[in-house]
Amino acid sequence: MSNSVKTLVVGASGYSGAELLRLLLMHPFTELVGVTSRQYAGQALSMVFPRFRGAAKAEEVVFTEPDLEGIVASGAEIVFLALPHGLASEFAIPLVERGLRVIDLSADFRLRDAAVYEAYYGAAHPAPAMLATAVYGLPEIYSDAIRGATLVASPGCYPTSVILPLVPLLREKLVVPETIHVSSMSGVSGAGKSSNTQFLFAECNESVRAYSVPRHRHLSEIEQELGVAAGAPVVISFTTHLIPVTAGIHTTTYVALGEDVAVSDVNRAMEAAYAAAPFVRLLGEGQCPDTKNVVGTNFIDIGWVRDPRTHRLVLLSAEDNLGKGAASQGVQSMNLMCGFPETGGLLNF
Amino acid sequence: MSNSVKTLVVGASGYSGAELLRLLLMHPFTELVGVTSRQYAGQALSMVFPRFRGAAKAEEVVFTEPDLEGIVASGAEIVFLALPHGLASEFAIPLVERGLRVIDLSADFRLRDAAVYEAYYGAAHPAPAMLATAVYGLPEIYSDAIRGATLVASPGCYPTSVILPLVPLLREKLVVPETIHVSSMSGVSGAGKSSNTQFLFAECNESVRAYSVPRHRHLSEIEQELGVAAGAPVVISFTTHLIPVTAGIHTTTYVALGEDVAVSDVNRAMEAAYAAAPFVRLLGEGQCPDTKNVVGTNFIDIGWVRDPRTHRLVLLSAEDNLGKGAASQGVQSMNLMCGFPETGGLLNF
Amino acid sequence: MSNSVKTLVVGASGYSGAELLRLLLMHPFTELVGVTSRQYAGQALSMVFPRFRGAAKAEEVVFTEPDLEGIVASGAEIVFLALPHGLASEFAIPLVERGLRVIDLSADFRLRDAAVYEAYYGAAHPAPAMLATAVYGLPEIYSDAIRGATLVASPGCYPTSVILPLVPLLREKLVVPETIHVSSMSGVSGAGKSSNTQFLFAECNESVRAYSVPRHRHLSEIEQELGVAAGAPVVISFTTHLIPVTAGIHTTTYVALGEDVAVSDVNRAMEAAYAAAPFVRLLGEGQCPDTKNVVGTNFIDIGWVRDPRTHRLVLLSAEDNLGKGAASQGVQSMNLMCGFPETGGLLNF
Amino acid sequence: MSNSVKTLVVGASGYSGAELLRLLLMHPFTELVGVTSRQYAGQALSMVFPRFRGAAKAEEVVFTEPDLEGIVASGAEIVFLALPHGLASEFAIPLVERGLRVIDLSADFRLRDAAVYEAYYGAAHPAPAMLATAVYGLPEIYSDAIRGATLVASPGCYPTSVILPLVPLLREKLVVPETIHVSSMSGVSGAGKSSNTQFLFAECNESVRAYSVPRHRHLSEIEQELGVAAGAPVVISFTTHLIPVTAGIHTTTYVALGEDVAVSDVNRAMEAAYAAAPFVRLLGEGQCPDTKNVVGTNFIDIGWVRDPRTHRLVLLSAEDNLGKGAASQGVQSMNLMCGFPETGGLLNF
Repeated sequence: MSNSVKTLVVGASGYSGAELLRLLLMHPFTELVGVTSRQYAGQALSMVFPRFRGAAKAEEVVFTEPDLEGIVASGAEIVFLALPHGLASEFAIPLVERGLRVIDLSADFRLRDAAVYEAYYGAAHPAPAMLATAVYGLPEIYSDAIRGATLVASPGCYPTSVILPLVPLLREKLVVPETIHVSSMSGVSGAGKSSNTQFLFAECNESVRAYSVPRHRHLSEIEQELGVAAGAPVVISFTTHLIPVTAGIHTTTYVALGEDVAVSDVNRAMEAAYAAAPFVRLLGEGQCPDTKNVVGTNFIDIGWVRDPRTHRLVLLSAEDNLGKGAASQGVQSMNLMCGFPETGGLLNF
Repeated sequence: MSNSVKTLVVGASGYSGAELLRLLLMHPFTELVGVTSRQYAGQALSMVFPRFRGAAKAEEVVFTEPDLEGIVASGAEIVFLALPHGLASEFAIPLVERGLRVIDLSADFRLRDAAVYEAYYGAAHPAPAMLATAVYGLPEIYSDAIRGATLVASPGCYPTSVILPLVPLLREKLVVPETIHVSSMSGVSGAGKSSNTQFLFAECNESVRAYSVPRHRHLSEIEQELGVAAGAPVVISFTTHLIPVTAGIHTTTYVALGEDVAVSDVNRAMEAAYAAAPFVRLLGEGQCPDTKNVVGTNFIDIGWVRDPRTHRLVLLSAEDNLGKGAASQGVQSMNLMCGFPETGGLLNF
Repeated sequence: MSNSVKTLVVGASGYSGAELLRLLLMHPFTELVGVTSRQYAGQALSMVFPRFRGAAKAEEVVFTEPDLEGIVASGAEIVFLALPHGLASEFAIPLVERGLRVIDLSADFRLRDAAVYEAYYGAAHPAPAMLATAVYGLPEIYSDAIRGATLVASPGCYPTSVILPLVPLLREKLVVPETIHVSSMSGVSGAGKSSNTQFLFAECNESVRAYSVPRHRHLSEIEQELGVAAGAPVVISFTTHLIPVTAGIHTTTYVALGEDVAVSDVNRAMEAAYAAAPFVRLLGEGQCPDTKNVVGTNFIDIGWVRDPRTHRLVLLSAEDNLGKGAASQGVQSMNLMCGFPETGGLLNF
Repeated sequence: MSNSVKTLVVGASGYSGAELLRLLLMHPFTELVGVTSRQYAGQALSMVFPRFRGAAKAEEVVFTEPDLEGIVASGAEIVFLALPHGLASEFAIPLVERGLRVIDLSADFRLRDAAVYEAYYGAAHPAPAMLATAVYGLPEIYSDAIRGATLVASPGCYPTSVILPLVPLLREKLVVPETIHVSSMSGVSGAGKSSNTQFLFAECNESVRAYSVPRHRHLSEIEQELGVAAGAPVVISFTTHLIPVTAGIHTTTYVALGEDVAVSDVNRAMEAAYAAAPFVRLLGEGQCPDTKNVVGTNFIDIGWVRDPRTHRLVLLSAEDNLGKGAASQGVQSMNLMCGFPETGGLLNF
């Protein structure tokens, strides 16, 4: 395996981290050389995650304390950060300075504007200068920049499901940006593996509820990216809901079509935008995606319907919040950064 | 029990019918004198629904074939119809003619306009004349008419959750009707107890999907009632989703507030509208309802948030699709029709 | 409500406590005069448990700090303890000394032998003398003693489901005690409302696992009660499993039938034992219970099958772990203690 | 892909069939040349199973009518049968006669004794002579025979989970065969994709129930294989339960240890038996498996505990009922039959 790229994951104790490890353990072109976690330091991967027993590296690789020098000494070429926001930048900054390439699954470098970061995350950004060099890790939109990136800010789970259906339509000015209304539903793994009674089985099972209304933190990056596509600031309505599934996000987006726009224009724009995107599955007009078809994969499924009564478009998208919404999307970026086939290690069904 | 009202349920084999039976078995002021079902004729209630074993009437009452003369002969004063649309009217019409009072859980008499019925249900209405006398069974809005009604058309599950939050705001013209966007999520019992592989456990579990986009049948009665409140036709966007819970509906509604309207106006209108409504629980501004707090009850919980960024209102409502969305709402109408306390047999938590 | 009995709940912040409050809020013969909780002191019931909004007492009754003098001053005649084991006795002892009647949902007074308590709970029993006066709160077996009891030790969730099916057979010596093998499955609410990542939705959903093998703490009271019925010590095999339901316990018990015993002897013994027990529903030979028929109720459903190949009996029982396995069983004891009808406030379906 | 083996699946419309297709679409050494289904004839794989969209073969391969000549003409070398029992033999017999190698996921050829087949399946066996040549497809036990087999009868889901933990202990006579008591829990996909209201979401969710007590059909093959291991007929107690998960089986087995047998003997026997078995993960003494760690894989996880109070062993095993219990186990057999690495296409985590 002499030509394999060495990878390391910092903070791999949560759900995104575990999914990332799962993908890296099976990735054909990389070698996992380290994982860190304060909580699990000293334990083999397979002890912490019994699901990984039987994978060679899962017995061999042992969690270590997160330590900058240790990470550098590991020989890792690509470092994934699966840390809470705020903490991620503490590692990203020195790692980039030491010449490593970083894929950050946190929110720390997703926003281009430090003021927006502060407004949404309640603290001054620790390294505003790096915001300019970080690349938003949505490969369907920024593949070229990702290829050359030193620091990739991998998108949040909700944003991916909102941005991808809308970008082609905003770019081509087929829709009216100020009419965007989004309702998203997420599985409970999105809340993380924290000991919070709100997310106990008995609290979430047989339950549906909205939360973080009206200003979920992910709104900041959604509006940033929609604004880039529209060529002007975009302000939307966005409501998130917690539903009793482990993984999966379903997003329903309403947007008014331009006056003379037909649904055939939508079809064409979508197909043109994603013709070469291996992980965007356009179900097409009149089709409804189902999260059960994407869970465990890097796919996002997108369908749409025009409502003739209102001339509004209903966009429906489904993805795995831990997959295309987090870990596998990070791996997709890694594939681009390393010159691997974009689908390397990700074509499972 | 000489002063108790005699009740009978036609077609009690599905989920709404079973919930209705459950409530009638425990109702303090009525006596269940019959249930009909082609499928279960000859079997005692407790055999078909083991959950009811131990209720006196559940051993005593036996399913019979649905037969008009038999129903009349039973002495029933209130007849509930828990039948598929189209079939319900076949019973409702002659029963009303014979002087019985009917509460119909189906869609057959919910619409005032036979043409709308035909547009949404694909067949001419069998008794257009009766549409004028039928009362839409939403007690929070039509209590007086329900008290004197011969035929109550009990609302659908989704409509209740959409109409109740919006009506006070439309009546007072606090919101802009043409900006209404609704996203609803329903538990799987809403699909009925039919042998359709789409609703198998393994198809619905770990799955979320939209369906009947963009024109769910319930849109017809929603727009009818919103139009009444607004004093003018209302056209909305409405998307329904299936989520893996047995019971419960959560509805998220966006609507633009009028230019000079403050959220305090919303608060006041809501409180005024529902001050005397025992089953509408206003959680108030900034609060998010959770279906797990209403399942098994006749309550609808409503919260709302104004988004200062868009001056839109987000309305959040939760109810049990089989309860306030079907069976217990029918019992609430019966309470009014019979002069019982409105909460009779319905105050469980 | 002059003739109503005053009740108070100590430690009502967990799942059993909440279920108990729910039942007491609706109980026709009692008045809830207080609830205590360190965590929630100062908040109204309806704030902590939004499900209870609309119940008169839920707005009126406010959580207070757990304080002996306050409890006594409340005028409560019956005090329920919904506390962790170990802590319950700290309240039970002085409350009994002050003349109040106590129903303890914890394990503190279930065992007659302080040495067994120490072996299973890892600490010396704080009041061994009181073990003799405490009554094991299984009304189907100890109704007379419960009527006159000062301190009722309400059984654990698993024990109820294991003891009730076996006791009639052991008493009549129809089965071979040393051949008892039990497999139980419990919903996740049984693990309590504690912030333990093991019981997060994403850890329990789509998961089944055994735990506390081979010596769950409930084994101690199970064997105690089976031994009483058999007239000699009984040692069994008992394995508990966690399954992804919120509430419900299903127990499958194997036991060899005596050589000349026929299944008709089993039928007769069961019917004789529970003819007057309103909450034991004997489904009979060849029938399988389902937890969904008992959740939310105080019923235990029992079925059984003789395997002709082995001459072993398979006993199947289902109950709500928070109901007959905890809160409603406590209320059933209260009904007996207060001279109410045994089914008071408990006949819901 | 000149050196790839051509495969075809007959009857791929159910859950096992879909899982099999999923594995074959990703298998590195085979080429899927056909699938048949009366129901879906004419439709591409990706239309019937939207999850497979994006897999090259899923767009290319189209369901055809199940037709012997068509199957032969396809060039398939390995034919999988994912058909109901009874129907499978109608294909297996002529296909074997025509020289194709068959892996049958049904029960038709699992039993060596046609009389046992008739006793459990209620019909005379259609080809008793072939029972002698069919190989029971449990690779951990019959790998050599599978390598050379023409007809592999892939085991049922429950049997795999019962047989693998017990065989090493029975072979070494460490346990007392007549004391075996088994309790198994299965996910609902095990009931198949049939339109039966019993398996609707609303019937299975929040529900646990035993079924097919006391003689589930799988008992026949379990006892056959345990008898082979023990060297004498074995009769066991076996109860199956339905729990609300989509996939996964958990089996808890009790068996008395021989008088002088220590748990270290068990440890040693297990390790010796499965040292070279890539899909048996021995968690070891004191460890409890969890179905969530094996779902989607071909692993079976096994743990065990000796109960010192009874000197009985508790064996705990977990597998995916559609994986190691059906489809992936069939692929494992195929790997052996074709001389591929045993883990080919199956090492996912």
